[in-house]
Amino acid sequence: MNKTDTPVTVIGLGLMGQALAGAFLKAGHPTTVWNRTPSKADQLVAEGARLAPTIGDALEEGSLTIICVTDYQAVQELLGASDVELDGMTLLNLTSGDSAQARETARWVTQRGARYLDGAIMAVPPTIGTAEAVILHCGPQADFETHKSTLDALGTLSYLGADHGLASLYDVAGLAMMWSVLNAWLQGTALLRTAGVDAATYAPFARQMAAGVAEWLPGYAEQIDNNSFPAEVSALATDARAMAHLIKESEAVGVNAELPKLFKAMADRSIAAGHGGEQYPVLIEEFGKPRGD
Amino acid sequence: MNKTDTPVTVIGLGLMGQALAGAFLKAGHPTTVWNRTPSKADQLVAEGARLAPTIGDALEEGSLTIICVTDYQAVQELLGASDVELDGMTLLNLTSGDSAQARETARWVTQRGARYLDGAIMAVPPTIGTAEAVILHCGPQADFETHKSTLDALGTLSYLGADHGLASLYDVAGLAMMWSVLNAWLQGTALLRTAGVDAATYAPFARQMAAGVAEWLPGYAEQIDNNSFPAEVSALATDARAMAHLIKESEAVGVNAELPKLFKAMADRSIAAGHGGEQYPVLIEEFGKPRGD
Repeated sequence: MNKTDTPVTVIGLGLMGQALAGAFLKAGHPTTVWNRTPSKADQLVAEGARLAPTIGDALEEGSLTIICVTDYQAVQELLGASDVELDGMTLLNLTSGDSAQARETARWVTQRGARYLDGAIMAVPPTIGTAEAVILHCGPQADFETHKSTLDALGTLSYLGADHGLASLYDVAGLAMMWSVLNAWLQGTALLRTAGVDAATYAPFARQMAAGVAEWLPGYAEQIDNNSFPAEVSALATDARAMAHLIKESEAVGVNAELPKLFKAMADRSIAAGHGGEQYPVLIEEFGKPRGD
Repeated sequence: MNKTDTPVTVIGLGLMGQALAGAFLKAGHPTTVWNRTPSKADQLVAEGARLAPTIGDALEEGSLTIICVTDYQAVQELLGASDVELDGMTLLNLTSGDSAQARETARWVTQRGARYLDGAIMAVPPTIGTAEAVILHCGPQADFETHKSTLDALGTLSYLGADHGLASLYDVAGLAMMWSVLNAWLQGTALLRTAGVDAATYAPFARQMAAGVAEWLPGYAEQIDNNSFPAEVSALATDARAMAHLIKESEAVGVNAELPKLFKAMADRSIAAGHGGEQYPVLIEEFGKPRGD
């Protein structure tokens, strides 16, 4: 059987589900779809999809079913219906949720005799089916490998490990990086605008800084894994003094100083704990503590 | 005159001042140095530097003088001494400070008949003299161009504009990006460590995210300059829901949630102001407001 002959089922036809089913169809896979509101399938049916009358019927069609719905509660409601038989199938859940929900759903699905992969889509619907769409997967590696050639239709695949919570964790960690880069860029843009510098002029500088600092991360990670933070480049106390400059400058020119103040508050706590002479990654101790009230 | 025959003076021989003078010597420039504690010049004198007995004497030696001392107050104290004649010379001030201090010092120096450039060193001392050391300059462009071939000995030069406050602003804006990327990486590392993922395994993912998002900045900058924020990729309200996931996940696995909570607080204020259907860069309005108590 040619790999593009592999049948696949997509449950949930929001914007993302429609994009997923559309990418399978485009790659030549016989594609069965189901959605609570059947009209969402109209375009896909016109492109060759089969609209199943019930979820139970949809699942019978293929060995691999992708589900992408509102939340994990909806996953269990839909798949827990009396006419749904999960035994022997493989489910890839691309619904957004947290790691505990993913692990609990893995238990729930596998108890019903199915194989379970969890995933997270690091992309917006229009990019699905292109290399730009990064899709994270976790669960048993053998199950991922079995279906990899089918899933290749969706974008750039990444396999994270057996723990079903990993995709959710990497997903939110990646989003934290996204918002951080954007917020730092906005802080800088706000500062520079007070001197009449437009955003387009400042952006390449911010881009270069972000990309440059990103290159340090693998080296800094070694300090964390070794739990040893020698101040090879600079000491945290020196950073804290520069943070005070950033706060003062932000206040002096009249822009928001909340983000710089949070940076400094975390650094100051670490310095108070005796880490002022160590390097920045020693802050992992502060980030690893429950706090946020 | 060969460009490396151009004499230069360096005032202030802390670790950074020593690195600056050393780079000039290495490039072949006749280099005069001065420091309040003369012994800091010993190594440089051994390498061929001339140690001036007074600042006034040091300044007579060259048309270009670089000063790099503790703070701007020290700059004015040193250069305001009775035996110091600034008339006709060019001063490049690489001392750390804020934009208001740089602009005020520019007025003070030019009133005394000298040309003034301000700068900021985006590097640590060991990299001075290599392409890795980025040095920002601002002030009259003609003065920068006159001395560019001499300053090339220090690293990669960047000219920002005539406003003497620009180097300080870019400096702190760049640092805000540095700490943001590092903090986001630490937040993600803390999250993943709860699932047994070591820092070295997570770091390449964080690096790729940071570098990827950095590529969006020039496009997003257009939205800011056009003051128009259509949700081409996603709406701020969607981001805020994902931020809630990040907060919930951080709390559930027992890591710090302060950074995610600040992200969401800023997004929520913007949504409350009616921007939930617009794209992330609309937050420039929040970043541009004085706040941080």
